[in-house]
Amino acid sequence: MSVLEICKKARAASYIMAQLSVDQKNLALCHMANALEANQQKILASNKIDVEVAKAKGMKPALLDRLALDAKKINGMAKELREVSALADPVGSIERTWTRPNGLIIGLMRVPMGVVGVIYESRPNVTSDAAGICIKSGNAVILRGGTDAINSNVAVGEVLREALTGTGVPADAIQVLANPDRAAAEELMSMREYIDVLVPRGGADLIKTVVEKSRIPVIETGTGNCHIYVSEDADLERAVPIIINAKCQRPGVCNAAEKVIVDKSIAKTFLPKAIAELRKNKVEVRGDEEVKRIVPDVKLATEQDWYTEYLDLIIGVKVVTDMDEAVAHINKYGSHHSDSILTASFDKALRFIKQVDSAAVYWNASTRFTDGNQFGLGAEIGISTQKLHARGPMSAQHLTTTKYFVLGRGHIRE
Amino acid sequence: MSVLEICKKARAASYIMAQLSVDQKNLALCHMANALEANQQKILASNKIDVEVAKAKGMKPALLDRLALDAKKINGMAKELREVSALADPVGSIERTWTRPNGLIIGLMRVPMGVVGVIYESRPNVTSDAAGICIKSGNAVILRGGTDAINSNVAVGEVLREALTGTGVPADAIQVLANPDRAAAEELMSMREYIDVLVPRGGADLIKTVVEKSRIPVIETGTGNCHIYVSEDADLERAVPIIINAKCQRPGVCNAAEKVIVDKSIAKTFLPKAIAELRKNKVEVRGDEEVKRIVPDVKLATEQDWYTEYLDLIIGVKVVTDMDEAVAHINKYGSHHSDSILTASFDKALRFIKQVDSAAVYWNASTRFTDGNQFGLGAEIGISTQKLHARGPMSAQHLTTTKYFVLGRGHIRE
Repeated sequence: MSVLEICKKARAASYIMAQLSVDQKNLALCHMANALEANQQKILASNKIDVEVAKAKGMKPALLDRLALDAKKINGMAKELREVSALADPVGSIERTWTRPNGLIIGLMRVPMGVVGVIYESRPNVTSDAAGICIKSGNAVILRGGTDAINSNVAVGEVLREALTGTGVPADAIQVLANPDRAAAEELMSMREYIDVLVPRGGADLIKTVVEKSRIPVIETGTGNCHIYVSEDADLERAVPIIINAKCQRPGVCNAAEKVIVDKSIAKTFLPKAIAELRKNKVEVRGDEEVKRIVPDVKLATEQDWYTEYLDLIIGVKVVTDMDEAVAHINKYGSHHSDSILTASFDKALRFIKQVDSAAVYWNASTRFTDGNQFGLGAEIGISTQKLHARGPMSAQHLTTTKYFVLGRGHIRE
Repeated sequence: MSVLEICKKARAASYIMAQLSVDQKNLALCHMANALEANQQKILASNKIDVEVAKAKGMKPALLDRLALDAKKINGMAKELREVSALADPVGSIERTWTRPNGLIIGLMRVPMGVVGVIYESRPNVTSDAAGICIKSGNAVILRGGTDAINSNVAVGEVLREALTGTGVPADAIQVLANPDRAAAEELMSMREYIDVLVPRGGADLIKTVVEKSRIPVIETGTGNCHIYVSEDADLERAVPIIINAKCQRPGVCNAAEKVIVDKSIAKTFLPKAIAELRKNKVEVRGDEEVKRIVPDVKLATEQDWYTEYLDLIIGVKVVTDMDEAVAHINKYGSHHSDSILTASFDKALRFIKQVDSAAVYWNASTRFTDGNQFGLGAEIGISTQKLHARGPMSAQHLTTTKYFVLGRGHIRE
């Protein structure tokens, strides 16, 4: 099937999706979960082909690990779909209605987005996770996974589409773009007439490419150069475990801390202790001149370091004279994802929350909570670092839009 | 000043803007209104240069009319700013807060977008209208008007910036891009790091160019290929005035009706009357084969007609067998702006409202009400026909976003 045909089928399916009841959508999600479990052998066989091709090409072990499926991962995919089916219906509610002086009644209704495009890398579980959130929110979805996972994604897509039989959700609501060519992906990104929003999921390069090339509105996700700012009045006993948690609990994810900023007045007492603890946890520390003065054997950070999302056991440490300098640094070098202040002062915390221009701003907590499930929003399709439409964890509700309805009785404009 | 310098100044100003009180912003808006009135001579002198250059270039009278300012238009610009100052503050509210099982308190706060870019054509009044909405919503704004209006826009910008002195709103919150080169506009569209959203205002070509070239998230506005569907059970006495109003009250605007769709069972009785009335109002009618069979002297509509936004006294008329055909036609050929059903049946109306994929869907009313003021939302910066972020009339509230705040007491993720 051509990209255009896929897009047309998805658009046609989206009109049916928008009319479905929540029961129909939930039934479909449960059938999808059951089908993944029932068709494990088929999926694993296809995944094996991908893994072997990737091994022959010399794919790194960490990436191979993301690509390879097993029974446990497939059960996890099924569990995720069941959890999504248990979420509240994000569409259909009437947000508000009002009456104009001329008697026109106007209302705002929450409706599905229509067709959602998802472009992602080599994790086949995204195929079912993204399909689940899109179905729950009443959308049709076009999935374009990484070339390395093409056989796995096609197999998962077939299983999910077959599972829709008899649920009311049309099979065409789930489309897997099976053409691995880059040209096909670029064609997909031009289909503004058929796709309402494009969500890239993956590394900085993938996201940059989609932002550059897409003619469809994109929600930028993912990059997290997150900061912990230790104010002079912070509880220093609590500060160290927060920093260690934010950096080390899972260093390869976007809400992990990449930088620590410390007020000058406490730097001498706090930094030696904090850096020793970071090193105990195998973290490489890169500091500015002031940090080096206090702990001479740290590596000197470059200008580029302040912009970098390491996604690794590395952390940048900077000393500032006051909160204004900390805020200016975060707004300049950060990625507007998640940043935290550690302070005893509510005043300072509130000012920090207002002034830091990020999707999630924390007081006395690790940044690792920026996540759909941790926030209590349910499964997410990504973490938006832009301000348009959705900011922070994007759950099913963020894949909806609104529509005005206007009820007249022969009204004409004077 | 270079485009980059303008962007940097706007970004710096945006951080100040985000901290202002509603009183400071309203004071600024009132000062801006007063300054426009007090500096009429300066603005009119600059406008005269633009008008003379345009005349020498042979600009059409309708466009000259849009470009030329006079005392009345400037007073209108001032009035608009005062009306915007009277609107409710769209930022600062806490939309909701909730507590997670681990005791983390999470909240969602409404905040300004940051820096808004507006690219528009040759109406200098947009300079102050757009600046007003952006200031009200706590944003800095970068204005890039049409080359033909460059002297007028620069003069209006200077007057507005000077008026900000002493209000708390920094002058740099209003930036007019004085470089008329296309390259400067393209550079502006690449400034993703400094501009949070770009709103093009103008004709289809301008909007298409911005959508194609921008690396910044764009809100697509404006194109309105609006339909009136006359169902077989419509009140035909009311139907004619609604059609005439929707087509003729102001044919050059995006919420004017461009198409009428009529159920076959009433076509023979309704069409001769409706078409006679349209012609009495100087409207050219283009119909499909079925319309021609009933009123033989109408022009035959081409396939292209069904896609066209005439913005003129022309209307396309089509006969359908039932509502499903009408809905499919509107979703295929329409621009997802405003569409209306005329029917006595609440059932049908509700189905139409749910199935038609447009920003505003009407029952028994003219489409001419899709407008910020008519909807009671206040002045608008455009009418969004996309689904991301804002759909329909975009007022000050639509130039805001949200931010999560997370309050912990030493919380770390398990």
